[in-house]
Amino acid sequence: MVKVFTDHGVVVRAHTGSIRIARSVRSRPRIAPEATLSAASNPVVPRVESTLRDFFAGRAGLVDEIGGGYREAVSTLERFVLRGGKRVRPSFAWTGWLGAGGDPDAPEADAVMRVCSALELVQACALVHDDIIDASTTRRGHPTVHVAFAEEHRAAGWSGDPGRFGEAVAILLGDLALAWADDMVRESGIDPAAAARIAPVWSGMRTEVLGGQFLDICNEASADESVEAAMRVNRFKTAAYTIERPLHLGAALAGADETIVGAYRRFGTDVGIAFQLRDDLLGVFGDPEVTGKPSGDDLRAGKRTVLFALALERADRDDPAAAEFLRSRIGSDLSESDVDEVREIIVRVGAVSEVEQRITELAASALTALEDSGVTDRGREALAAMATTATERTA
Amino acid sequence: MVKVFTDHGVVVRAHTGSIRIARSVRSRPRIAPEATLSAASNPVVPRVESTLRDFFAGRAGLVDEIGGGYREAVSTLERFVLRGGKRVRPSFAWTGWLGAGGDPDAPEADAVMRVCSALELVQACALVHDDIIDASTTRRGHPTVHVAFAEEHRAAGWSGDPGRFGEAVAILLGDLALAWADDMVRESGIDPAAAARIAPVWSGMRTEVLGGQFLDICNEASADESVEAAMRVNRFKTAAYTIERPLHLGAALAGADETIVGAYRRFGTDVGIAFQLRDDLLGVFGDPEVTGKPSGDDLRAGKRTVLFALALERADRDDPAAAEFLRSRIGSDLSESDVDEVREIIVRVGAVSEVEQRITELAASALTALEDSGVTDRGREALAAMATTATERTA
Repeated sequence: MVKVFTDHGVVVRAHTGSIRIARSVRSRPRIAPEATLSAASNPVVPRVESTLRDFFAGRAGLVDEIGGGYREAVSTLERFVLRGGKRVRPSFAWTGWLGAGGDPDAPEADAVMRVCSALELVQACALVHDDIIDASTTRRGHPTVHVAFAEEHRAAGWSGDPGRFGEAVAILLGDLALAWADDMVRESGIDPAAAARIAPVWSGMRTEVLGGQFLDICNEASADESVEAAMRVNRFKTAAYTIERPLHLGAALAGADETIVGAYRRFGTDVGIAFQLRDDLLGVFGDPEVTGKPSGDDLRAGKRTVLFALALERADRDDPAAAEFLRSRIGSDLSESDVDEVREIIVRVGAVSEVEQRITELAASALTALEDSGVTDRGREALAAMATTATERTA
Repeated sequence: MVKVFTDHGVVVRAHTGSIRIARSVRSRPRIAPEATLSAASNPVVPRVESTLRDFFAGRAGLVDEIGGGYREAVSTLERFVLRGGKRVRPSFAWTGWLGAGGDPDAPEADAVMRVCSALELVQACALVHDDIIDASTTRRGHPTVHVAFAEEHRAAGWSGDPGRFGEAVAILLGDLALAWADDMVRESGIDPAAAARIAPVWSGMRTEVLGGQFLDICNEASADESVEAAMRVNRFKTAAYTIERPLHLGAALAGADETIVGAYRRFGTDVGIAFQLRDDLLGVFGDPEVTGKPSGDDLRAGKRTVLFALALERADRDDPAAAEFLRSRIGSDLSESDVDEVREIIVRVGAVSEVEQRITELAASALTALEDSGVTDRGREALAAMATTATERTA
């Protein structure tokens, strides 16, 4: 394990990754050793978590006043929020702030950290509600929130349908996380000028991610086959929400000029899209041992990824029988041999190498965007390492 | 029809109401002629609606940039928000601001109106998500949002389950309404001092209403029979959210002193609880022609109201056979004759007269709270009229 870089926060560990077919077809030059943002060694993580813990502690009075079983429900939400995840969004926001000249030793650093950490509450809402939408049963190795409350209902022998009860509670707790995300920003202690600067960024981010999620479920339901539709979901559900806007938020907190903001947004869009493209590959070719997700799940769920859209586009042109096979299997309960055959087709028609190529180009153009941008040297190094992490990960 | 009062906003029409058994058992003195806040004649309503319309118009650029079918989905949300309702919360907030010395001709009035109107976006989230939770099919004479999107899915012949799709879209649009409510406050244009004053009020209100909703579904699922549990739901789901906090918000916008804030909060809690108690009566005894809700629906849904809890408490003491009948029927698919029998029991054991008595006492104590509070005379008159509206309505 090699420590690649640290900048008041981000530590990147190099390690040898493994990805089945993706590895076998990749021939692009590496930007940097394959690396992962490790929750265990990234010092932003414990700081985000203690900031979130303090926020929840500050709500106890209000929650206790409401009484009943609300405190226990909120504790479930708190455990969910604190249970981990890589804190990708706060890390990008914090790094964006540092790279735009933010001083981690300045008095406002704690307030900035609160704004960055609030992104995890937006994310909690997104995950809790997404898990209802996708009818997912596990998340981060635990039952999803709606499943946990359905189980409580069942264990207590309550009346009505446990599943409906679990979803109802999860809808309300997701709403609470979203409302509290706003509260956390509002109560962060940043000065009014900074608050005014971040307002449109914060607003844009929430509108975009909800739009991206909406388009995603529409594409799935309508079986939209276009690369363009899949790219639009990548752009708003992932790139804007996960990287572009968090960096933009960091820049706005630091009062960065338009050059830095523009560079961050281009970098964030490119890396964010590449991040999702990598996710698409992992969803089909990833090692279940490493990703933690059953192999082929994206295909069974009928996810309309760029990878799949490209495969269809190419199969239509070069191999109509293969195209027909892809269409007949996507969104169905594929057998393991079906999954293998779909994989083989996706590779054979060249969709995997095209996606790898796009990832490589996006990663390169992202780094170019930071040149002569006014971002500090250490900030650029940190972001380069994070770009590598995001685009070359194996899980 | 008689115009009772107008104060730069609130007009109250006197009319003759009708309530079946509730009328027959009430013997309390009236505060004022039975009245209703009429959307048609309350000048706050068109102002709230044009403010909301402007807000949605201001979002068009961001929404269009996301593209796909997002614009149409947001239009559905906009129509839902603009479709009516009595704008009770903005009316209380605005009246609270006026009563605390707010000047409707001052330059900041538009900004204040934007904050007041944002309450309707919180309410849109609450209604859209509540309709999923309650599996309601109609709202304000139209299909609920999740039903409308399920129908679109069906009409388009899309894949997957239309019901799940409709709920997914409704979850996301409810989230969007909640996020935009915050945006609308943040972008309202009130000065930073006012923003700081309203922050804890806004935060408290959202936490309370979500807590109240959570307790409500838990009471229903656990068949909690206590008056105390039902009162806690009234307090937070209705009173705090609908009247107390909107008035508090208005007071905070005006920079009111603690005396006014305290008076408003006592008034709001009392009127809010009385408002919900009236709702409980209407849910069992209301005229379906007037309420627009099928008679007995609250009983079939198993709603754990204060009215029902009091009826059970009294029946346990005085008429165990009646108590057994109530327990056997609540939450079941009651026939019309069952509904009639449940009604008869609730009246006979004295629960209706106790609830009417409580409403009378709460309405009186609410008015007392405003005395010597520093609230303007016109503000007190307006609030008195609104208290009457809220507690003596028939629909």
